[in-house]
Amino acid sequence: MIVYTDYLFFNTQTRQEFIRITDDIAAIVKTSGVTEGTVLVSAMHITAGVYVNDWEEGLIRDFKVWLETLAPAGLDYEHHKTGEDNADAHLKRTIMGHQVVLPITSGKLDLGPWEQVFYAEFDGQRRKRVVVKVMGT
Amino acid sequence: MIVYTDYLFFNTQTRQEFIRITDDIAAIVKTSGVTEGTVLVSAMHITAGVYVNDWEEGLIRDFKVWLETLAPAGLDYEHHKTGEDNADAHLKRTIMGHQVVLPITSGKLDLGPWEQVFYAEFDGQRRKRVVVKVMGT
Amino acid sequence: MIVYTDYLFFNTQTRQEFIRITDDIAAIVKTSGVTEGTVLVSAMHITAGVYVNDWEEGLIRDFKVWLETLAPAGLDYEHHKTGEDNADAHLKRTIMGHQVVLPITSGKLDLGPWEQVFYAEFDGQRRKRVVVKVMGT
Repeated sequence: MIVYTDYLFFNTQTRQEFIRITDDIAAIVKTSGVTEGTVLVSAMHITAGVYVNDWEEGLIRDFKVWLETLAPAGLDYEHHKTGEDNADAHLKRTIMGHQVVLPITSGKLDLGPWEQVFYAEFDGQRRKRVVVKVMGT
Repeated sequence: MIVYTDYLFFNTQTRQEFIRITDDIAAIVKTSGVTEGTVLVSAMHITAGVYVNDWEEGLIRDFKVWLETLAPAGLDYEHHKTGEDNADAHLKRTIMGHQVVLPITSGKLDLGPWEQVFYAEFDGQRRKRVVVKVMGT
Repeated sequence: MIVYTDYLFFNTQTRQEFIRITDDIAAIVKTSGVTEGTVLVSAMHITAGVYVNDWEEGLIRDFKVWLETLAPAGLDYEHHKTGEDNADAHLKRTIMGHQVVLPITSGKLDLGPWEQVFYAEFDGQRRKRVVVKVMGT
């Protein structure tokens, strides 16, 4: 059994940014030598998420507009009494999910034709990490 | 260590349909020979989800009504400029989740008394897949 | 390969309660002897969730207020025709997620600086379980 760990680092230029990471994950899986198994991809910060969906800029904008309606920035959140101003980022990442587990079959990510993995940053402009844990044979 | 892969196929008659797949997963786990481990059940299409909840028709209707309020069909989504009309399906599947990892203990799915696994289709009437990846000993 | 299973039990005093379980999970990981791998933490009841986010009481209150706006209690849910009154608990747990998979690296939970694991009870005051499945080497 192989267990292989790596990390991706992000430091986005804007507060909110969705970044496609499918190829980065695929490269780590290849390096790991795992041909049958799974890979966990998980945000290590609680104002960011990892999700699987379409690589289409219109839909990505739809996601951002939609998240703003469900979890608006700028409300009078209790969390802000600590001096923070990012409560909405905690909520938005909860909607999107903070991690995915991807199957590896015959040495490759076993994804459907339109599945792409994204890192979703909701409170960026500082260094953040995603852990990538590959397990299998 | 055993890693065993199978797929479930769906082609729903209606656009939106929730299908119980607990027994299908249990059968695949049995075939795999894994007695201690986990099984990943993940939609391979980005307008469908996999979730665990109650097998009760009233609640399933509640879920559908609720998802329509949170992620309505027919809005003027940017994604639709590509010719698609299913942006709401991408959002709905995000709420429900696109995958689950189920524990296997003593050769069986280790589920609570009311836990049932569902495939949630939000843009059906075409052939779609779910990957089932069993890992363990 | 090691596969190790344990359970956490909860019986909350109030209907809704968020309980930090990071240390409980860390203790089970230590007992398992796994130094490289993952641990699945999954609610076995369908009106409770498990999530990773901030250990800050203000934000926890924000989560509760927010969930009430997205999935209100007391609506005329179809599920209630069965005699139940907890449809909102099923919906709330769906938003928060019902499980997480945590990486284990060098014998410890490999979490970011602010990541904390929570059990989220939405229909408590009775005995409930969370399964903890550790896998790795």
